[in-house]
Amino acid sequence: MRILLVGAGGTLGSAVGKALVERGHEVVGVGRTGGDVICDVTDPAAVSRLYAQVGRLDAVAVAAGDAVFKPLADLAADDFAATLRGKALSQVELVRQGLGAVAPNGSFTLVSGVLTEEPIVAGAAASAANGAVEAFARAAAIEIAPQRINVVSPTVVEESLPAYGPFFVGMEAVPVARVATAYVRAVEGAQTGQVYRVR
Amino acid sequence: MRILLVGAGGTLGSAVGKALVERGHEVVGVGRTGGDVICDVTDPAAVSRLYAQVGRLDAVAVAAGDAVFKPLADLAADDFAATLRGKALSQVELVRQGLGAVAPNGSFTLVSGVLTEEPIVAGAAASAANGAVEAFARAAAIEIAPQRINVVSPTVVEESLPAYGPFFVGMEAVPVARVATAYVRAVEGAQTGQVYRVR
Repeated sequence: MRILLVGAGGTLGSAVGKALVERGHEVVGVGRTGGDVICDVTDPAAVSRLYAQVGRLDAVAVAAGDAVFKPLADLAADDFAATLRGKALSQVELVRQGLGAVAPNGSFTLVSGVLTEEPIVAGAAASAANGAVEAFARAAAIEIAPQRINVVSPTVVEESLPAYGPFFVGMEAVPVARVATAYVRAVEGAQTGQVYRVR
Repeated sequence: MRILLVGAGGTLGSAVGKALVERGHEVVGVGRTGGDVICDVTDPAAVSRLYAQVGRLDAVAVAAGDAVFKPLADLAADDFAATLRGKALSQVELVRQGLGAVAPNGSFTLVSGVLTEEPIVAGAAASAANGAVEAFARAAAIEIAPQRINVVSPTVVEESLPAYGPFFVGMEAVPVARVATAYVRAVEGAQTGQVYRVR
């Protein structure tokens, strides 16, 4: 399959790209500052240009999302709006605008995270964005069939512990390769409207 | 208790207000165009003025939220953003800005809806907003204790079938009084971070 991978250069995206290539797929990597195509997917107009540029696809997989982490009392309205734009609306637009670019039997794989169900201090905006992504995917699934849409919800990955470990203290980390396996399942499988939790 | 009820004039809000008054509470009703206090809670600055005006509270209960219903292909980025602002960010701001106005043992009760788990065609934006509200409440609960926060998630209510029935065809409706009972539970109970589903 020809797969657009958003966030291809990150810790998660690199592992997802490796897993998809090992399965014989062609991966078109998208990044904000590097990759096969450069695109800021938080800008709906840039998403439109992205799909015009890359042509026909069999799948879109997202491994990127920006969230603001601050104690609730410090999370301003703009922080919440930026987090919803950076992790939820960006993925919604990749789906909505991608409907015509992806094959009729193709798929979208989005990313949420453990904070949907298991909150951490300073993570309220990220939790909200994750909750939006999962509920959106369940809803979109019934409108886009036979195209499919699923969500991978990872807990913190071992490879990110140096950066994020203090936020997730006491929560078990998983190897990022396990999370990548869930992307392979979503892309090559037949389910839709699912949240694959990797814990 | 002295309870701020946002959306007091609507189908749901009227029933919640009646139930709270019957339990002996003082209800301060907020509406966009009427009620004890007029406020557009989708404007963070207006929420700030609202709390400055109403003084000390024991609880805040929300029975209002605007969502755009359109087939997914027609839901523009602006429709999603408006729905997140109208139903999710508005409630987030009522909590965040209300932390100092509500008593230390007080509570917030937000509203989501059945579309978080059970999607309908044309409801993808509403589903996303509901998912954000529920995940936010779970996250906020661990940061605001001993203040509490819960969510009431109603299915369509019988009293709204003339307006919304076609969207929810085949889904069982419930009397709005049953939904109001869940608000009483959230306000007078002791749990936090819960989603009370009324189905």
